[in-house]
Amino acid sequence: MAPVSWEGRLLVVGAGLMGTSLGLAVTRVGGQVLLADLDARRSDLAASLGAGEALPDGLDSDSTILDGVDLVVVAAPPAAVGTVAAAAIRSCVRATVTHLASVQSRPQRDIESLGVSTARFVGSHPIAGREHSGPVHADADLFRDRPWVIAPTDQTEPDAVRAVVELARVCGGRPVQLDARAHDELFARLSHVPQLVASALAGALQGLPPDDVALAGAGIRDTTRLADSDPEMWAQIVDANAEPVAAGLRAVLEPLTALAERLERAGRDGDRVEVVRGLVERGRRGRALLPGKHGGAPTALSAVEVVVPDEPGALARLLAAVAAEEVNLEDLRVDHSQGQPVGVAELAVAPTAADRLVAALRSDGWTVSSGSDTAL
Amino acid sequence: MAPVSWEGRLLVVGAGLMGTSLGLAVTRVGGQVLLADLDARRSDLAASLGAGEALPDGLDSDSTILDGVDLVVVAAPPAAVGTVAAAAIRSCVRATVTHLASVQSRPQRDIESLGVSTARFVGSHPIAGREHSGPVHADADLFRDRPWVIAPTDQTEPDAVRAVVELARVCGGRPVQLDARAHDELFARLSHVPQLVASALAGALQGLPPDDVALAGAGIRDTTRLADSDPEMWAQIVDANAEPVAAGLRAVLEPLTALAERLERAGRDGDRVEVVRGLVERGRRGRALLPGKHGGAPTALSAVEVVVPDEPGALARLLAAVAAEEVNLEDLRVDHSQGQPVGVAELAVAPTAADRLVAALRSDGWTVSSGSDTAL
Repeated sequence: MAPVSWEGRLLVVGAGLMGTSLGLAVTRVGGQVLLADLDARRSDLAASLGAGEALPDGLDSDSTILDGVDLVVVAAPPAAVGTVAAAAIRSCVRATVTHLASVQSRPQRDIESLGVSTARFVGSHPIAGREHSGPVHADADLFRDRPWVIAPTDQTEPDAVRAVVELARVCGGRPVQLDARAHDELFARLSHVPQLVASALAGALQGLPPDDVALAGAGIRDTTRLADSDPEMWAQIVDANAEPVAAGLRAVLEPLTALAERLERAGRDGDRVEVVRGLVERGRRGRALLPGKHGGAPTALSAVEVVVPDEPGALARLLAAVAAEEVNLEDLRVDHSQGQPVGVAELAVAPTAADRLVAALRSDGWTVSSGSDTAL
Repeated sequence: MAPVSWEGRLLVVGAGLMGTSLGLAVTRVGGQVLLADLDARRSDLAASLGAGEALPDGLDSDSTILDGVDLVVVAAPPAAVGTVAAAAIRSCVRATVTHLASVQSRPQRDIESLGVSTARFVGSHPIAGREHSGPVHADADLFRDRPWVIAPTDQTEPDAVRAVVELARVCGGRPVQLDARAHDELFARLSHVPQLVASALAGALQGLPPDDVALAGAGIRDTTRLADSDPEMWAQIVDANAEPVAAGLRAVLEPLTALAERLERAGRDGDRVEVVRGLVERGRRGRALLPGKHGGAPTALSAVEVVVPDEPGALARLLAAVAAEEVNLEDLRVDHSQGQPVGVAELAVAPTAADRLVAALRSDGWTVSSGSDTAL
């Protein structure tokens, strides 16, 4: 269960999107938050948004203030995390120190190399963000229902881990423990490589006449949405995670390079149809692993689509027919977007029940189109 | 101005997502639509959705029917378009014949090689679609406000072009003329390469433990959304547009391959930070060419963000302050997502006016964060 209050005193160093969102989430449950930033206008802005109280001198503040801090969150760019976290470990003598960066191994090594004890330090990475940076885009709900990776080492004190787990829960996040190296390899695949690929894809649009690019459909807009991200931030992330990112890039580039070679050979080539089909099919299977809409870690369901006339009671009759077959309806969506006097009901049912349901509804006189609709 | 009625008789061959959507759009303005499909259940389903009248024998129907057809739209997979369109040219002696496929040169060549006259044929490609195929996902508004490329050749009769332009307008689309080769090169970049890249990215997720992939954020979900597409359809498109797709792939792969090589070299490398920064910066510039949200073919605007306390009249006071500076407000968005007693107003203004406005508002006591917010 998520705690509904926060007892400690939190110091957020870095009043950007992440730091300010964190401050908003913690002040909302009554927590005490201090906000520091190299640029005082940013911490002032975050404070004026309600994210906490600005601490103009940050980690150089009086020890009477810093000694009272229970948790320091370093919400700084990856390359700065090690130095700032080491300073926080020195200045805040009782505090657990964490950060929110997208890489874990490099900051950990940086801190160790600076000769401070890492017992009170534990890296973390909430899987949350927005395309826009800066405190004005902060959101108290940024971390809600999002995973929050916590990466302790053998040296980390259990109390430090507990403090960051509690912070994640206070923000509505779902804490998950992962080794720093495992984290970095995984997020090279899930985040860093997609970022670079999106940037390269968008970059290749340069040089095309703007009137031509204006004909683009929604597909490339989604595929390149990440390309809006901050170049400096990503340069630091990729630099800090070079080997895993290189391996992840190779895994994506290899089939595409092989396909390009194939397509460059002249003449019709029946096998290249196979190659493309295989590539797209592998993509569908990979995509099915992703959480959220149309992904499906839990149990996959079959869709049975039924035409529903726009008459009183038609949908009720349909649901009665489903119930009569004793099929459990997992989900129902009715789509009237045709702007026509009929709608389509999409019934999500267990795959084992789908064929039986389709047959029963058809024999009842319903117009049914079942699941995988690849014909034409 | 879009016509509000359709006088002719339309035959749609292929009652999938595109064909059925077309039928819905044309019947909505009172047009007569006949629907044919190799799978009679699909044309019956489309007819029951209100997309027209099923024509069970399709292009093998009696000549008394086919002679009355004014326009045939071949809404079939790319590899089938040439054959079906040639048959339509032969069977429907008065009709203009078009198709809706994502490639233009190959169908044109296919038809020419079948020895029929191409005077009444003109290829077309509405830039519209959904992730889901099949008639049940059809939508009368699928083509609304979307570009619709029409690709005549020297042989095309002007009346044939006019008929397809009118069809596009009836469906609410925006007809654009483009040479078949130019179309294919452009859509290799705007659509076919993004599809393959999305599939390769998603395919590379296979082999990762499902629990780990479940930690993925929204970024890779957007970047791989296209990977849900139909493998058979894409195999045909890419096969039919091999050379332009290969060239487009190379343009995306080249910088990524160079980066992977760089990242594989051991040791810290200051220049590789530059390389990544350059890649992401080029991506931002390319992305700015895209139409729609956050793209900006028209004039780029600067964003000035102002903190607005949740007090009666606060927003009105802000707008009065903007007006007092005689700055033209191009757009205004107010974001209260912080769940806090303040909001942020985002003022879009001409870049030349932004600095002046920021200074004036600050001196008036407003908390302002101007546009490019990369500090931290």
